[in-house]
Amino acid sequence: MVEADAATRAAQLCDAAVAGDRLSLARLLTAVENRTAVAEAALRRLYPTAGRAHLVGITGPPGSGKSTLVAALIADARRAGRTVAVIAVDPSSPITGGALLGDRVRMQAYAADDAVFIRSMASRGHAGGLAPTTTTAAVVMDAAGFDLILIETVGTGQSEVEVAAAADTTVVVEAPEMGDEVQAIKAGLLEVADLVVVNKGDKPGAQRTAAQLRAMLVATAPRDDDAPRSPSRPRPKRPEILVTIAATGEGVPELLAALDRHRASGRVGESSAARLARAEAQVWAILGDRLRERLHQPTRAAATASLLADVAEHRMDPYAAADRLLKAIAEG
Amino acid sequence: MVEADAATRAAQLCDAAVAGDRLSLARLLTAVENRTAVAEAALRRLYPTAGRAHLVGITGPPGSGKSTLVAALIADARRAGRTVAVIAVDPSSPITGGALLGDRVRMQAYAADDAVFIRSMASRGHAGGLAPTTTTAAVVMDAAGFDLILIETVGTGQSEVEVAAAADTTVVVEAPEMGDEVQAIKAGLLEVADLVVVNKGDKPGAQRTAAQLRAMLVATAPRDDDAPRSPSRPRPKRPEILVTIAATGEGVPELLAALDRHRASGRVGESSAARLARAEAQVWAILGDRLRERLHQPTRAAATASLLADVAEHRMDPYAAADRLLKAIAEG
Repeated sequence: MVEADAATRAAQLCDAAVAGDRLSLARLLTAVENRTAVAEAALRRLYPTAGRAHLVGITGPPGSGKSTLVAALIADARRAGRTVAVIAVDPSSPITGGALLGDRVRMQAYAADDAVFIRSMASRGHAGGLAPTTTTAAVVMDAAGFDLILIETVGTGQSEVEVAAAADTTVVVEAPEMGDEVQAIKAGLLEVADLVVVNKGDKPGAQRTAAQLRAMLVATAPRDDDAPRSPSRPRPKRPEILVTIAATGEGVPELLAALDRHRASGRVGESSAARLARAEAQVWAILGDRLRERLHQPTRAAATASLLADVAEHRMDPYAAADRLLKAIAEG
Repeated sequence: MVEADAATRAAQLCDAAVAGDRLSLARLLTAVENRTAVAEAALRRLYPTAGRAHLVGITGPPGSGKSTLVAALIADARRAGRTVAVIAVDPSSPITGGALLGDRVRMQAYAADDAVFIRSMASRGHAGGLAPTTTTAAVVMDAAGFDLILIETVGTGQSEVEVAAAADTTVVVEAPEMGDEVQAIKAGLLEVADLVVVNKGDKPGAQRTAAQLRAMLVATAPRDDDAPRSPSRPRPKRPEILVTIAATGEGVPELLAALDRHRASGRVGESSAARLARAEAQVWAILGDRLRERLHQPTRAAATASLLADVAEHRMDPYAAADRLLKAIAEG
């Protein structure tokens, strides 16, 4: 339940953020990252007015030039008169204090442009997981009126891929000539791609990489009789492949056009499937928080702790413990 | 609930696996990966006899030589007469069919040695998350009698780090002279380290890297008055730093000794804290599965789907939806 003063504070910040105050927006996002009562009240307030922005996930292995591509997309989107927000999921730690990467610094060129808003988020330490936090941050930016929301992640871990895949459109960025281990990572990434970009198109092997990717995608393309991966998230159609040189901006207008096409393509059930999967993940994360609260409330905390100790010491199996907790939850 | 024939099948496989039949062990692990009814029955059967093995997480950025180090650890552990099981979390995809990395192939030298068991697991596509699946796989290997269980992950994503950090002892592997983005990843990894290994110790800069890490760890070492990160997983003490050359085996006996020291050190509450955190994560994952089953059971599936559609279309906020589902769960 939301406390009254949190609700008041949230209302102030939300109204100011929607009116264009960037400091209030930044404060809301901090509340979202810290999962405070203000964040809950703000989300409830802003949620009905969100759902208008185009959420684009941008992911790929280290060294593929994702951040440079994001910077180039911002430049072209601004030229087209669109407002842009970026969530950059930083692989460095909140505790040991992560380095600001070169390209992130480059993006600060937009510090004076009110139509561009860039936010770094730590990839670790989110109580309820990275994906729900990122989704909530995007809802806040969406309600604050941004047209295009770019979610940039290093696509090397499951969480990061899930974050990118929670977008309306998922772009996987590759670069020519990457190492073996990175190649292996790539295969997993391609599954979530709506668009694949071969960046650093001026490097030797770029066209060969694009051709290899095309061949790989033909080989693994879903047939009509393939079972979908999950009811709410069917496997996407074979992704389009583009070549860019983000550093010079070459191919970037074509990428922006491809993003628009993907959004507008009106593939039956697909764009709404992304929204549905996102909604489900979000509701589920909140449900998990609520349950944790219930199980750790003062009257029940000791019983929960003793049950977990029994499992840790192998006196009770984890299924038996889960069933006991489920019974406790049902009893209110 | 476990069906009778699943229980019978599980009993057969468990008895055979515990008696040393590797094919049955492999089949159990496949059941664990696919989260079948057999897996649940098997875990319930094996859990009381597990808890004896030393679980060691080995993680680090791509290119640090983790797999070579794992191979070297196997060789030295075998020389000491210990049995070893390995869970290698492969970043490649189960769908597009991941590449076998060179070092994994090298490990196949042990194919004829019954005291060594190596299992690759895909890092994606686990219904309930990678960490619970890996933990369950380790319980099965533990009950099958392996002394040392090495869990190798590419430490670039939150999930992979969580997997490694769920072990009794977590080893973070670094290599000299890594790129900027990898450096940033490293900072997050160090937080979970019980031991840090600078591998490729024959490369230029190895000693400098070790010195830098020592300085970094001194700078970020927890003081006595630091609040713990969570009640069940206090921040580890400052990790020991070792230098190895995995390719030649240099420094590996010292690493094995350090692993034993860490396990035996009997730091009050710490080793049991790792077990407690693991138990909690496992119970929580099962609880999540049970709740999902309840909400998607035939009599309730339509109501759940309609609720999620309302959230996807921004007609209802996700907190309101979560509270409705919580009410439905409590009503049984």
